[in-house]
Amino acid sequence: MTEPAGSVASDNNDRFVRFVLTDAGNNIEVPNWSLASEKLGLGDHVPFKIWKKTLHGGKQEGSTLVGIEAGELSVLVIPTRGMGIYKATYRGVEFGWESPVDEIVHPSFVDLTGRGGLGWLEGFNELLVRCGYEWTGHPYRDGDRIFTLHGRAANTPASLVTVEVERQAPHRIKLTGLLKEKTFAFANLETLTELVIEPGTGALHIHDRLTNKLDVTSPYQIIYHTNFGRPVLGEGARIMAPVKRVVPLSETATKNLANWQRYSGPVSGIAEDLYGLELQGDSKLRTLVALVGPDGSNGAAVRFSLDQLPFFTLWKNTNSYQQGYVTGLEPASNYPHPRKVEEAHGRLQHLGPGATQAFDVTIQFLADRSDAAKVASEIEGLQAMV
Amino acid sequence: MTEPAGSVASDNNDRFVRFVLTDAGNNIEVPNWSLASEKLGLGDHVPFKIWKKTLHGGKQEGSTLVGIEAGELSVLVIPTRGMGIYKATYRGVEFGWESPVDEIVHPSFVDLTGRGGLGWLEGFNELLVRCGYEWTGHPYRDGDRIFTLHGRAANTPASLVTVEVERQAPHRIKLTGLLKEKTFAFANLETLTELVIEPGTGALHIHDRLTNKLDVTSPYQIIYHTNFGRPVLGEGARIMAPVKRVVPLSETATKNLANWQRYSGPVSGIAEDLYGLELQGDSKLRTLVALVGPDGSNGAAVRFSLDQLPFFTLWKNTNSYQQGYVTGLEPASNYPHPRKVEEAHGRLQHLGPGATQAFDVTIQFLADRSDAAKVASEIEGLQAMV
Amino acid sequence: MTEPAGSVASDNNDRFVRFVLTDAGNNIEVPNWSLASEKLGLGDHVPFKIWKKTLHGGKQEGSTLVGIEAGELSVLVIPTRGMGIYKATYRGVEFGWESPVDEIVHPSFVDLTGRGGLGWLEGFNELLVRCGYEWTGHPYRDGDRIFTLHGRAANTPASLVTVEVERQAPHRIKLTGLLKEKTFAFANLETLTELVIEPGTGALHIHDRLTNKLDVTSPYQIIYHTNFGRPVLGEGARIMAPVKRVVPLSETATKNLANWQRYSGPVSGIAEDLYGLELQGDSKLRTLVALVGPDGSNGAAVRFSLDQLPFFTLWKNTNSYQQGYVTGLEPASNYPHPRKVEEAHGRLQHLGPGATQAFDVTIQFLADRSDAAKVASEIEGLQAMV
Repeated sequence: MTEPAGSVASDNNDRFVRFVLTDAGNNIEVPNWSLASEKLGLGDHVPFKIWKKTLHGGKQEGSTLVGIEAGELSVLVIPTRGMGIYKATYRGVEFGWESPVDEIVHPSFVDLTGRGGLGWLEGFNELLVRCGYEWTGHPYRDGDRIFTLHGRAANTPASLVTVEVERQAPHRIKLTGLLKEKTFAFANLETLTELVIEPGTGALHIHDRLTNKLDVTSPYQIIYHTNFGRPVLGEGARIMAPVKRVVPLSETATKNLANWQRYSGPVSGIAEDLYGLELQGDSKLRTLVALVGPDGSNGAAVRFSLDQLPFFTLWKNTNSYQQGYVTGLEPASNYPHPRKVEEAHGRLQHLGPGATQAFDVTIQFLADRSDAAKVASEIEGLQAMV
Repeated sequence: MTEPAGSVASDNNDRFVRFVLTDAGNNIEVPNWSLASEKLGLGDHVPFKIWKKTLHGGKQEGSTLVGIEAGELSVLVIPTRGMGIYKATYRGVEFGWESPVDEIVHPSFVDLTGRGGLGWLEGFNELLVRCGYEWTGHPYRDGDRIFTLHGRAANTPASLVTVEVERQAPHRIKLTGLLKEKTFAFANLETLTELVIEPGTGALHIHDRLTNKLDVTSPYQIIYHTNFGRPVLGEGARIMAPVKRVVPLSETATKNLANWQRYSGPVSGIAEDLYGLELQGDSKLRTLVALVGPDGSNGAAVRFSLDQLPFFTLWKNTNSYQQGYVTGLEPASNYPHPRKVEEAHGRLQHLGPGATQAFDVTIQFLADRSDAAKVASEIEGLQAMV
Repeated sequence: MTEPAGSVASDNNDRFVRFVLTDAGNNIEVPNWSLASEKLGLGDHVPFKIWKKTLHGGKQEGSTLVGIEAGELSVLVIPTRGMGIYKATYRGVEFGWESPVDEIVHPSFVDLTGRGGLGWLEGFNELLVRCGYEWTGHPYRDGDRIFTLHGRAANTPASLVTVEVERQAPHRIKLTGLLKEKTFAFANLETLTELVIEPGTGALHIHDRLTNKLDVTSPYQIIYHTNFGRPVLGEGARIMAPVKRVVPLSETATKNLANWQRYSGPVSGIAEDLYGLELQGDSKLRTLVALVGPDGSNGAAVRFSLDQLPFFTLWKNTNSYQQGYVTGLEPASNYPHPRKVEEAHGRLQHLGPGATQAFDVTIQFLADRSDAAKVASEIEGLQAMV
């Protein structure tokens, strides 16, 4: 364990132990680091381990990776790729997918403007990738400018990364990362991302706070692009969601609308389907969408709030394993059309001067039929309210 | 102090102590280094300290920074950003500005071709940034090629960085940095930048030597883009210059022409004004433009020679603090229009085979009314010659 | 010598000693390393030395370089630039050329999409550079997408680099490097490059294996762009090749067709000539093209097989030394026209699902008249078969 000066501090009321892993403002980037609950004297509950590595070789050179292993849950986070979540494992089931991109690509090797604005795909392989926040969605040209696919956040290295551990059991672990999207005359957006894990559970709680540091209203767009492949995705896997309406967003989706909830196995060369789901929320606008695996024994639910993320896109890319058999459950501020299309339809969001918008998303991993049944029943309850 | 083999050498006549901080040709990049006048046995005059750091975290990862602190003057230089000057302080007054870009961004995180050729703005926050030398000015498309904003120099890491200190008092300090802009079939330009400080004074002396290493004439363009914000810039601050003519270069500038010398306080959302100043020089074509703060007690004069830098642009961006309240005093080889426009107007400069062009610019910091008065009187003298 | 854990392993039958210099999969990037035959106990034949360095300063920051020195042959390979070969020396003759680009540029400083798709030229200075494998040839725009000059391989850092040395004399040395060109929805190409040297000889044997990891047929293009300048290139130097037909590929080439085999000395500003050579192979389609220096005492032969690389381009850039006096001998899968042109003419190659294509190219250095005479006689023999 490499411990930089000032890397440990407790807050005023002594509730947390805090570690600074990255702090550009204080010239700190801890290359390698690890922490075990026993060493902290917090071994009275579910044991955990947290570590950070700097990666080397190929396009991984300079990428950083943080691992959190707590009980039966483990997760890998990539600070250099906008605090994206690479993969997670819960009770022996791996969540994530097999992209052709098999390295954790450092942003300096990605040419976002290349490939007609699709250069973002040179690094795409995460379980969760933030698409935003200046713009998101499919690329388009506006004059000489290409609005590149899914914005810049995923290729923005975090400027501040900290780990906090609660002194009291269950010793909740909080990983924060600050993303700066700042360009003179364009934007001054800061996103303080937060990932919270309670050792002993199987959920990732994301609490992001996007702030517009300008004194004028700024547009923003965000897609929380969660992606699942094998083993949860497979022939017979299905989507559960409390839908008011399902809107096909692609040509094949119109054709396949009747089967929007069902997944085929991988079919080489098949076109991807894109659906917009208009969802029912509870009285506080909270809702969820779940993916359940072929035999119903595993899956994942994505929970969020419609007042924060009013749109939801379902991406079904049931192409071959080699081409990245994957489905995306994507709560968002809008649909993934080009920003100008979203603006024309009144779906472009804005943040006032100095204003902050929270985004709270939970990825709940389902590891058995009982978990899946509870989620199914919850979704049915919401569906009944439509 | 980390001292690489060969980092200390004196010249033939023993006038200098010399340190090599970067030398790509000899595989040297000293990550961290510092030097104090006393350690050198040169403590007989104004004490000084010189240091170099490699920065870490966020988009600063890999950036380098050199600090020179001599008496009441201190300055920060960024070798990885074309030897740009980040900020300076003189007698307690800070010179520079507050860009929304608050990190010293490494070039590998800047996509110059992005944003329709405005990607340069992702790193822009310097007190002095060199815009050139293959091209400068506003972006434009020529066929499939985008001439990106302000050229590549500011995103070119220096290939050779040395510090020299004169053995004799006042122990002048010379920081040199070599910028290579070399592209097969396009350009072979080398700029040996030089920053000279005389401990005990409040001026930055820049002596750059641009060489065309090709055997054919090459076009070049350069803007010495000096930028000032608070506290020198404020409501009531004013520009002093020996002008023969003031040419509005933007629409609002035409409207605001009568007030070209005066600054308002920050006004959110206001358009920037751009003026071309046709200046009077002395018998050797030397001239200066000064910015004086609201109460006349601080300011800066930019001194240069019209035979080297015949054009001058005044950029007044009196937008809000959050959007970068700043003014640019910009001696240049031309106006900041697209290169093809400058060429069409006969303002594109050229360098013959193997030829070298010198650019000597002094930034003189004004720390009291007496300093300002002397500069005012000097400018009035030139103005009387018009 | 820094030896990472697991960096030494012998294969099953104990034929090789093996060293891992880079392995992204196991988070290995050995910054500095060296190996001498005597230390290995293999000093019974021609002595050799192999080393790796990480470069620092300017645009070289982070570049890696591997040197192999065996008897009278030495070669420099750049793992971070797609295992390109920078320069070689044989019996005191240097092979390579003097590009205006005089640094070993790290890919993070190259903007491939910039300069209308000619950004690749910001790093071009190798003796051998691989142009491919998704596309190669001259840039063109297709909708918003620019197919950039010569593809991405040369700006792809190797993900796995190993050195193997045969235990038995003559202790052949094998340097392998794995290039991954992987982009979701675009490509999944892996090229395992191999450079074999037999100490005591003067040849570089390249054995590359390109694999299409997708389950669908993928197009590919490759040019083995070998480049020679002084001293082999000079007034009176000439090309020898067993040609069936010589096709001018540029306007000046048409004009200069009669002299296609002869080189002038450097002529500043002269246009480059481009010829397609239709070559005669032996019964196994093996062929060769040789460049012989002005006085016939040095040169190089490029050997390959027409079933692997059916097209050959001769690039004569007899511009001034300052502009890179150089000639390219380029066995390839196609001509260097834009990919769509090659496709329209049926010259775009394809690889089936999971298929592998081998490319075997030998660069044989000629160090005296006897070497040159043997090659001349071999080429005459093939020419007689036309």
